[in-house]
Amino acid sequence: MIINIPKNSDFSIHNIPFGIFSTQDRSQRAGVAVGAYILDLAEVHKLGVFDFDMAVFHQANLNDFIALGKSVTSKVRSNIQDWLQDNSSVLADKPELFVKQSEAQMHMPVRIGDYTDFYSSIEHATNVGKMFRDPENALLPNWKHIPVGYHGRASSIIESGKPIHRPKGQTKPSADKPPVFGPSQRLDFELEMGFVVGRNTALGTSISTAEAEDYIFGLVLFNDWSARDIQKWEYVPLGPFLAKNFASSISPWIVTMDALRPFRVNGPTQEPKVLPYLEYEGKKNYDIHLEVHINDTAVCRSNFKHMYWNMAQQLAHHTVNGCNVQIGDMMASGTISGKDEDSYGSMLELAWMGTKPLQLNDGSQRKFIQDGDTVTMKGYAQKGDIRIGFGEVSTKVLPST
Amino acid sequence: MIINIPKNSDFSIHNIPFGIFSTQDRSQRAGVAVGAYILDLAEVHKLGVFDFDMAVFHQANLNDFIALGKSVTSKVRSNIQDWLQDNSSVLADKPELFVKQSEAQMHMPVRIGDYTDFYSSIEHATNVGKMFRDPENALLPNWKHIPVGYHGRASSIIESGKPIHRPKGQTKPSADKPPVFGPSQRLDFELEMGFVVGRNTALGTSISTAEAEDYIFGLVLFNDWSARDIQKWEYVPLGPFLAKNFASSISPWIVTMDALRPFRVNGPTQEPKVLPYLEYEGKKNYDIHLEVHINDTAVCRSNFKHMYWNMAQQLAHHTVNGCNVQIGDMMASGTISGKDEDSYGSMLELAWMGTKPLQLNDGSQRKFIQDGDTVTMKGYAQKGDIRIGFGEVSTKVLPST
Repeated sequence: MIINIPKNSDFSIHNIPFGIFSTQDRSQRAGVAVGAYILDLAEVHKLGVFDFDMAVFHQANLNDFIALGKSVTSKVRSNIQDWLQDNSSVLADKPELFVKQSEAQMHMPVRIGDYTDFYSSIEHATNVGKMFRDPENALLPNWKHIPVGYHGRASSIIESGKPIHRPKGQTKPSADKPPVFGPSQRLDFELEMGFVVGRNTALGTSISTAEAEDYIFGLVLFNDWSARDIQKWEYVPLGPFLAKNFASSISPWIVTMDALRPFRVNGPTQEPKVLPYLEYEGKKNYDIHLEVHINDTAVCRSNFKHMYWNMAQQLAHHTVNGCNVQIGDMMASGTISGKDEDSYGSMLELAWMGTKPLQLNDGSQRKFIQDGDTVTMKGYAQKGDIRIGFGEVSTKVLPST
Repeated sequence: MIINIPKNSDFSIHNIPFGIFSTQDRSQRAGVAVGAYILDLAEVHKLGVFDFDMAVFHQANLNDFIALGKSVTSKVRSNIQDWLQDNSSVLADKPELFVKQSEAQMHMPVRIGDYTDFYSSIEHATNVGKMFRDPENALLPNWKHIPVGYHGRASSIIESGKPIHRPKGQTKPSADKPPVFGPSQRLDFELEMGFVVGRNTALGTSISTAEAEDYIFGLVLFNDWSARDIQKWEYVPLGPFLAKNFASSISPWIVTMDALRPFRVNGPTQEPKVLPYLEYEGKKNYDIHLEVHINDTAVCRSNFKHMYWNMAQQLAHHTVNGCNVQIGDMMASGTISGKDEDSYGSMLELAWMGTKPLQLNDGSQRKFIQDGDTVTMKGYAQKGDIRIGFGEVSTKVLPST
């Protein structure tokens, strides 16, 4: 091995995720994460090992690289895997190719055209339905027929490490009194995963569930920040708006579908039967362990495999009406909750609308997120010795401006 | 006058709207509409009259031009007005500067980052509330406190002239039976206007109502295509999704805020009083006559001045939580209905859920839009001899694929 990769690293030889980084000496460019290092792809290109334009690695995002198609991007990844494991390969004895992650600044990996958020965890949808609607009929009538989704704001999706300010907005704390304006009192995270679209489609065409994964480049961790009090007052009838669009945070490394292949698992049985355009074959769920930490306290342990609707169904549904998708589009899963109370993917559910405050390691309690808190999400897939990690998305909450 | 402009032209000397065009001989570039012609701005730049990079006029969109700021773009417009009216100006005797609109292909004027649709006509919101909710309490409790809006799909916004296919999707025609899949049976237009954001903001900052119009470059006509049957089944609780994102059509010429200044009028009284961040001073509504035609039949005559919430309030609300906006973002008004039955801005309202079919000139009737129909929206502002027109957005509906 050309570079030492610690046994428990998220960025094992099996992973090779893509991202955009810069250092004091290097302008924004593409790289892959390897152990505690980044392999600088612009520098690797200089070795003459790739037959496409070097410019794709010198962009502020990966869109042009992804646009080369999986026949190229998958080969780049497998070449790197081969070279790293061969001590006499082109990468040998070239320390200038590697940058310590601790000395690099990560950036948004893609320019996101459109962002869509789904609502695909049955446990989350059921919990929300119990709290806000009818506990006896928690799931809405369309939920098991449609992978429900809505459009979100692309401009406010930010990379891990960038702090956010608590949003201000209109809320209606009292049914009898007029709405008021001020900082949200119910700031929440949502534990999600987001996938990055890897191929364009033309307006008027659709993607089948069978071909859907060919249109997905890879996945990131996704924190869909939410202001529950703003959401409650604004969301009927056209859905969440200011409650969500002040920020969403993502992990900087895109883990490819190639890397995740060993972790495919069966999804839950879907009953009632879905319409033919949503039927699928094979294993389309992914066994990815997920965690949420508030400061130094782990508050949630969940898994991406819990999703009722899989990514192939989401993409098939999204395009069945002819809606076009573009390289770099982001589609998030919706909050990923499991069956156990400590697997719920939001404070709303974990503290059950504030009725069961969480105890943190420092002795303090939380119903929602406080100013100064840092929320960190981590994720990895593991099977025997093969470990594929996502790193983390970590965001500090600053007071309202 | 260097070029003859017919008296009733939408593109009078007072207008000078910006767009992107191409011809057989000219690649995509910026131009302004003048009478029946386009003044080719890339060619004008060659005369050495502008002190910014010519590249901004040689893009596939106006984003880089708009990014120069109003101090530049307003001056370009007023220079052109001066030059066109001076027979000895730099534009004189240079026929190569002008292209007939009939010989040009228009393109999307901007690269749209994010698209937001508001719901700001009280007549429209009331009509929809009467039909689908409670006729006695048609307006939802938040409507007079919040300029309600939601995120839409940017990728499927297309230029006038491009046909669309009838969308397919899930609907639930019968309460007792499972949902079905097929072409929408209730395809509708929505008469809207869209404004194009002209300045970036940073995440975490807000725009006040007083400064909001500085952040708006100009307006276009906007047809927010809707599939009512898909919408009805999908929209609770997270809002419209596939019912809207298959296409929205816009007129190709962006009419600037400068051009529209003479047409400012007072908006309606807002009662109850809005929260301080939504208060505004001065005239923020615009008197713009609007029409919708199905094939050769005018079916709607409305006016942009009817809006309950104005653009300044929409932008202030959108950013009050710190959400950032970017040059090229599109924000649409929501359906623009007036008080009279023939001023309703959608088939849903005009034919009142199919109960009052419209009579077309050819003797046929319409409850919703049929395959083969062409829907055309036109708009202009007029005050004495000053006429500022938007041209049109015209879209033919083809059968489902």
